[in-house]
Amino acid sequence: MTDTSIFPDPAYKDTVLAPLFEGVKAHYAQHMDAINRAHLVMLVETGILSAAEGRKIAQALREIDAETDVGALVYTGEHEDYFFFVEAQLRAKLGDLGGALHTARSRNDMDHTLFKMALRVRAEAMLEQVTALSEALVAKARQESDTLIVAYTHGQPAQPTTFGHYLGAMIEVLNRDAHRLSAAIDGLGHSPMGAAAITTSGFPIDRHRMAALLGFEGPLVNSYGCIASVDYVTGLYSAVKLVFLHLGRVIQDLAFWSSFEVGQLYVPNALVQISSIMPQKRNPVPIEHMRHLSSVTCGRCDMVVNTMHNTPFTDMNDSEGEVQQAGYAAFESGARVLKLLTAFLPACSINEDRVRQNTDAASITITELADTLVRAEGLSFRQAHEIAAEVARGLDRQPLSAGFEAFQAAFEAATDRAPQMDKPTFQAAVSPETFVSVRDRVGGPAPAALEAALASYSADLAALRVDATTRRARISQADTDRATAFALLLET
Amino acid sequence: MTDTSIFPDPAYKDTVLAPLFEGVKAHYAQHMDAINRAHLVMLVETGILSAAEGRKIAQALREIDAETDVGALVYTGEHEDYFFFVEAQLRAKLGDLGGALHTARSRNDMDHTLFKMALRVRAEAMLEQVTALSEALVAKARQESDTLIVAYTHGQPAQPTTFGHYLGAMIEVLNRDAHRLSAAIDGLGHSPMGAAAITTSGFPIDRHRMAALLGFEGPLVNSYGCIASVDYVTGLYSAVKLVFLHLGRVIQDLAFWSSFEVGQLYVPNALVQISSIMPQKRNPVPIEHMRHLSSVTCGRCDMVVNTMHNTPFTDMNDSEGEVQQAGYAAFESGARVLKLLTAFLPACSINEDRVRQNTDAASITITELADTLVRAEGLSFRQAHEIAAEVARGLDRQPLSAGFEAFQAAFEAATDRAPQMDKPTFQAAVSPETFVSVRDRVGGPAPAALEAALASYSADLAALRVDATTRRARISQADTDRATAFALLLET
Amino acid sequence: MTDTSIFPDPAYKDTVLAPLFEGVKAHYAQHMDAINRAHLVMLVETGILSAAEGRKIAQALREIDAETDVGALVYTGEHEDYFFFVEAQLRAKLGDLGGALHTARSRNDMDHTLFKMALRVRAEAMLEQVTALSEALVAKARQESDTLIVAYTHGQPAQPTTFGHYLGAMIEVLNRDAHRLSAAIDGLGHSPMGAAAITTSGFPIDRHRMAALLGFEGPLVNSYGCIASVDYVTGLYSAVKLVFLHLGRVIQDLAFWSSFEVGQLYVPNALVQISSIMPQKRNPVPIEHMRHLSSVTCGRCDMVVNTMHNTPFTDMNDSEGEVQQAGYAAFESGARVLKLLTAFLPACSINEDRVRQNTDAASITITELADTLVRAEGLSFRQAHEIAAEVARGLDRQPLSAGFEAFQAAFEAATDRAPQMDKPTFQAAVSPETFVSVRDRVGGPAPAALEAALASYSADLAALRVDATTRRARISQADTDRATAFALLLET
Amino acid sequence: MTDTSIFPDPAYKDTVLAPLFEGVKAHYAQHMDAINRAHLVMLVETGILSAAEGRKIAQALREIDAETDVGALVYTGEHEDYFFFVEAQLRAKLGDLGGALHTARSRNDMDHTLFKMALRVRAEAMLEQVTALSEALVAKARQESDTLIVAYTHGQPAQPTTFGHYLGAMIEVLNRDAHRLSAAIDGLGHSPMGAAAITTSGFPIDRHRMAALLGFEGPLVNSYGCIASVDYVTGLYSAVKLVFLHLGRVIQDLAFWSSFEVGQLYVPNALVQISSIMPQKRNPVPIEHMRHLSSVTCGRCDMVVNTMHNTPFTDMNDSEGEVQQAGYAAFESGARVLKLLTAFLPACSINEDRVRQNTDAASITITELADTLVRAEGLSFRQAHEIAAEVARGLDRQPLSAGFEAFQAAFEAATDRAPQMDKPTFQAAVSPETFVSVRDRVGGPAPAALEAALASYSADLAALRVDATTRRARISQADTDRATAFALLLET
Repeated sequence: MTDTSIFPDPAYKDTVLAPLFEGVKAHYAQHMDAINRAHLVMLVETGILSAAEGRKIAQALREIDAETDVGALVYTGEHEDYFFFVEAQLRAKLGDLGGALHTARSRNDMDHTLFKMALRVRAEAMLEQVTALSEALVAKARQESDTLIVAYTHGQPAQPTTFGHYLGAMIEVLNRDAHRLSAAIDGLGHSPMGAAAITTSGFPIDRHRMAALLGFEGPLVNSYGCIASVDYVTGLYSAVKLVFLHLGRVIQDLAFWSSFEVGQLYVPNALVQISSIMPQKRNPVPIEHMRHLSSVTCGRCDMVVNTMHNTPFTDMNDSEGEVQQAGYAAFESGARVLKLLTAFLPACSINEDRVRQNTDAASITITELADTLVRAEGLSFRQAHEIAAEVARGLDRQPLSAGFEAFQAAFEAATDRAPQMDKPTFQAAVSPETFVSVRDRVGGPAPAALEAALASYSADLAALRVDATTRRARISQADTDRATAFALLLET
Repeated sequence: MTDTSIFPDPAYKDTVLAPLFEGVKAHYAQHMDAINRAHLVMLVETGILSAAEGRKIAQALREIDAETDVGALVYTGEHEDYFFFVEAQLRAKLGDLGGALHTARSRNDMDHTLFKMALRVRAEAMLEQVTALSEALVAKARQESDTLIVAYTHGQPAQPTTFGHYLGAMIEVLNRDAHRLSAAIDGLGHSPMGAAAITTSGFPIDRHRMAALLGFEGPLVNSYGCIASVDYVTGLYSAVKLVFLHLGRVIQDLAFWSSFEVGQLYVPNALVQISSIMPQKRNPVPIEHMRHLSSVTCGRCDMVVNTMHNTPFTDMNDSEGEVQQAGYAAFESGARVLKLLTAFLPACSINEDRVRQNTDAASITITELADTLVRAEGLSFRQAHEIAAEVARGLDRQPLSAGFEAFQAAFEAATDRAPQMDKPTFQAAVSPETFVSVRDRVGGPAPAALEAALASYSADLAALRVDATTRRARISQADTDRATAFALLLET
Repeated sequence: MTDTSIFPDPAYKDTVLAPLFEGVKAHYAQHMDAINRAHLVMLVETGILSAAEGRKIAQALREIDAETDVGALVYTGEHEDYFFFVEAQLRAKLGDLGGALHTARSRNDMDHTLFKMALRVRAEAMLEQVTALSEALVAKARQESDTLIVAYTHGQPAQPTTFGHYLGAMIEVLNRDAHRLSAAIDGLGHSPMGAAAITTSGFPIDRHRMAALLGFEGPLVNSYGCIASVDYVTGLYSAVKLVFLHLGRVIQDLAFWSSFEVGQLYVPNALVQISSIMPQKRNPVPIEHMRHLSSVTCGRCDMVVNTMHNTPFTDMNDSEGEVQQAGYAAFESGARVLKLLTAFLPACSINEDRVRQNTDAASITITELADTLVRAEGLSFRQAHEIAAEVARGLDRQPLSAGFEAFQAAFEAATDRAPQMDKPTFQAAVSPETFVSVRDRVGGPAPAALEAALASYSADLAALRVDATTRRARISQADTDRATAFALLLET
Repeated sequence: MTDTSIFPDPAYKDTVLAPLFEGVKAHYAQHMDAINRAHLVMLVETGILSAAEGRKIAQALREIDAETDVGALVYTGEHEDYFFFVEAQLRAKLGDLGGALHTARSRNDMDHTLFKMALRVRAEAMLEQVTALSEALVAKARQESDTLIVAYTHGQPAQPTTFGHYLGAMIEVLNRDAHRLSAAIDGLGHSPMGAAAITTSGFPIDRHRMAALLGFEGPLVNSYGCIASVDYVTGLYSAVKLVFLHLGRVIQDLAFWSSFEVGQLYVPNALVQISSIMPQKRNPVPIEHMRHLSSVTCGRCDMVVNTMHNTPFTDMNDSEGEVQQAGYAAFESGARVLKLLTAFLPACSINEDRVRQNTDAASITITELADTLVRAEGLSFRQAHEIAAEVARGLDRQPLSAGFEAFQAAFEAATDRAPQMDKPTFQAAVSPETFVSVRDRVGGPAPAALEAALASYSADLAALRVDATTRRARISQADTDRATAFALLLET
């Protein structure tokens, strides 16, 4: 059997090689340049290449960089990929020496290093957005610390609380999501460089130096794992998914709150689409858009994670270029959700009239009346609850504050005595303000409890920011160090 | 509370309205034009608008079409979306009459009509590719109807069969996938137009006429369902996913077959990436790319389907513009898989030497020896199997054809007599050619059985093509009818 | 290297073999008995076994059936699985002849035959539930054909329609889901028996007869595909998922409708959980349970489908016993949703007072006023809409019917004349009853349009029932035929 | 409208209440008892109940515990759920006082506390299994630190390494998975008790004390979040999924390695299913079972996580009883994978003959020859690679060690001189042993590098164990403290 076919088959070129080349142009060319420079520095520093060799290669790299308009490159199939395109340029300038830059490395370790560098930028940007959202929510929660809302369970009015308290619940989840995201970013922190094809190299490379020059914490240890393990990808996208899965749940609350009949959340005109014919129909569609953009983001994360399913550990393409790039769409849609929500929630306000109407109609302070009867009148729990229930039953969407006479009657029927509680005390007992103010336990809505919680969230966010700043400083320092060391090559 | 904010909020404009506008430009503008023209025709034909009104609006539409370079439009926020942009142009030309085109319709019914029109193009193109792949496989299977391969189960060599027979199994799944896809395309065949916002209209519209003018089979009946039901989306993407889930399984077989050690599948040079340093290392990476592109396609389908999860039936944005457009990426990556596989599989061949080596080493015809002993020597099944097993045990990767003496010994030990079978008969009995030729049952690998099956697959594919052609003809006819009717408006 | 280890390793026995054995006991033992009997009949009818052999094996099978309490069997590891357990019993009774039943078949073809038999029972039962639900909804829709509701889009009140009309939208999706399910059941209709291990057999088996004796339409053709293709599984679970994905969307509407503030749907006491302390808090938790049980069902379907992802086409365990059994949980939870929803929806009613309040407060008939002005007063669309909008703006949650004077003023301001429309005509024009009655187009809510639609749904359901009945009759007939043929074996 | 229906509707009882009750019996009854006792202790310690009240309730709880055979309970519908069943018993014994135990708490906070208690047991058990597997792999890696294998990339032989080195890559991923799991377990560490229905309580409860008595680190702060946030669930199942997604990738390698043609991994008889007729066919089916059980586990995790999708933040049932219980199946199937793999991998061995054959046939040491020529002969990289490639091209599956003469010829042709390298040096240079031994960089396969890595893995595992032990000790201590404090109630 003679095989006279020549690589690449046009179908392969069109469906894989050309799209991959476009992806490298868009996402990886600058990172590949950084790797090339760092690797050259390390090869010279370890004596694997001589200073003279290093200088020549450095000059060539600098020239190629100056001569190449990456964005304008068109894939021709002449070189298998962008890597070979650069190598061919080096060889054209340096002859055999052009190949020396590839000593003790491989596209395998380079690729996963590139991917980590591309992901850490995106993940840090997302974490920044998440942190900023959470900070905005803390500020909003402080502003709304005494703004009453109806708290729902099972979609039904249940108890009064404050908007600040509700936002606190949201913030806690978001902060934990930020921690998960931060941990996943730490999972990008070790360098595959030096793993070469699979097993490191017989040359005396310095993997720690390479890691430092590229802004990593250190080398990822096992060299086979450097090119085979994908948990830096799956771990990151799992963490990203959770951010948007959880935000999607809050968004469902916002949709309900802003419905015409509930009306608890007022969405300002700037964020409402209105029908020209029905001026009273206000569609708060940003909420819907945040919902489906969150869903799309979750789906894109799942796509990446599940692409790894049942792929051999030591195959690699399933975690490489095309899949990596497909994943970036999750960061794109996720960023839109975060940007929109960070504008949306602070711009919204609570419609206090509607809160009051719904509070009154649903008798949601009734549990506090029963508790008060236990504490103030010494009733048993059952008696207290039965009296309270009797009061509520008779109101038919009237406010509890109008129920004092009904209360007196129910109390006397149950206890054969008049209550000690007078009308003002009764009305205070059933007011939502009292309801909130007595809930001054850890995590409750009363002002002191909420403020303590908010302070702890701020502290937590500040700690997250310190971690992020440290990581970013490491990368900036590496950029500087790499530039300095590369410049030194040129001088020697 | 005074709300002085003005729509749209910049964050909403940037994160939602502008991206949506770009999407309409890329995907829907021409379909919206078709809807506008068809609707105008229907309004005049039903007398809702007069011929004079119709003529003026038709002229304006024609002018707008001529004056607008859709691709060059930039979203400014002045008009909420592309629909309002067109309406504003109409009003600019016609005054109040410009609004009359929107009589008895709504963006709600228009949107889902647009989406169906955009999807049917993509889905038909994918079905065409699936059909063409299956046809290519039928042709390949005919060519390879007597090319022996090792058939595996549990990843281990089990029995001989032919490459044609294997491809037949693949074709059957693919044809069933094509039927599922075709049924899902039928699910796009009914027009939402006339549902208007939710409930149809008080105007005497003709929903059948609208459907016909846009190439649909007829109107989708329930008008609330026209704007709320999303099963045309979920049904389609579910069907698309299965195509690629199933292809991914064949791809795993191809990966195994083309491994260095198995070597059953020869991938030509044009489809193999080679390392410059290891000339014997041939990486058939198109296989890996097809695997992960299939996975990505599956993931994108899931993304769309799962975005609908837990969304209120009568909300709509979760199934609209952004989600629709996000889904198109599944058609893009899926098309690449189909194009590459349609080039790849026919280009590959079976390495007959390796098949023979593996066949011999794994004694995979041994079951036929046992069956032959039952039929030819009148042994019980147990005796026959024990003799065959005894022969196989002694061979240690030698071919069964070398086992005649061992067979004689095992036979005599078990039966106290010599076998009637002579050496040529024995060797025929254990040859893979015999193994295949005696399996002439329905669905077996023997030539007649395979040819019967292949003929049935071709007939099935031809029937699928008839259905597709019918659907496409309906759309072409509608394009012609619409143009004619629209031209008539201008003349009257 | 000497390997003295003995199968099965205790860990393998505990984690795989014993659980599998329990699964066979619960799900497959009776189907395996049917296969054994049918196969024996076929072997004798084709002359592969003699009548005498057939009689002995038939007697033994009958005895084993009588002697074995399948439910009481405990897995010991002595026999690899249930199949070998039965074969050992046959050999104990019949000696070598016991093995003859396994002529020309394999566990491979038997297994997928078993799985199809087990799935078709479950899938038909689910289709029966879906059909019954849809029938119940048709009946309910007829009862509620003039019960007004508020129709929502984007979660906001939009237009009036009837509960019957809404249910029609739901029915259409459900009927299409039933068709998808029915098509997936047809995908279970072909028998793998005769594929044997992979390639059929050299024995003159009759695959059509086997298929008929087990209630299949015919044999599944390609024998490798019989044991390798899994699309009967993936196709079925994809169809099942869609049922519950779509129901979940309706459930979200029901949740919203039954909220305290909206109150459009009245859920009777029998389906509401009440707090002892808050008698006015009615939690319609069956809705939530249907939501998450639907989600769980979707998730279980995905689990099965995605388990096949990236598995080699010709490996088999990923589609066999354990995965099949794990999938049955989807039928279990799905059946609960369907049973509960079939009880729930007919038991609920529309709270007409709340519908009226919400209708009035949201001015949702305003579009019809504008349309009427176009038709009755000859206004342009823009004028009509501006007048209507002006009326609505002034109402502040008052009913439109109270807006006649405002209407007169707006009309005169816009047109410099008094409207021809008098107060009763105006009030009729803005009444929800009129709104519905004039929407007598295909798919609209007016009585005749709805009744036509409902009649078509009933006809569709009747056709689905005919198909199901035909399939079930085929299986019943096969049971009878098999019993007769088996009895004949015993007599000869 | 009169509603005479009575809770519970039979359909609701059958489909929801009865299954839930069975779930509580199986999973939560003992945790509910712990919560009851801890809550009573706290109520008395804070003075909310008197010592006398506390003693009576404690006695009643003790009696109920002694009198109730939870497993034998049958759901009747008389009490809505198990909670009300217990409360009814308390009331039967204590009258009104029976209700006092429910002061300042709710089923809402109790439920999520129960769920966390049930999950932490399962999650710790899984982490224990993961840790034990990793420890077993470290031990195996030490044993196999000089066992050569063929390392694959793209499914093709690439370089030699050791089995120990491969296992190191696997261990690193597993350890990171263990850390993710451990972090997710920390996410279960805060107590919802005291949140009551939503907003804490007006009674002076001590949430820290409650947390301590139930083995939590402290209270979860925001009380609305205590009952609404589900990230403890989604975070845990996301972490569990990754364990099995990643193991599934290793399993694919094992499947390939144990194929007949590759034969690198020897699976002992105890873990191989053998066909009686084909004694040479060894099916290492535990690998397949681990694959699909891993997939099923991943699918079950996804099911739980995705059930939360688009559910309102402050609804609760979607994260409660039924969904929680459905999730436990993931722990069940996951535990089977871990148990089986922990038995399987240590029992397997490397087939050194096959490794040698494949190493030789695939010339996988060729890169080291080129590198050696650079270092020892001072060649340029290109020259060295071209000579090495020329040697490999001529071998046609012969070992490189047989290529000295070809090497000499190629060297001279390229350089016009003879190599300094003599035959023994050449043979050493191309031996896999040399290949491995010179790769003594961080993370490489050479013995010292591997041992350093293994020591770090052990240290990491020890640290994980310390964390787990600390968590478990906290729970044990809480059990003791609770028992002591409860006993004290009885004595006072």
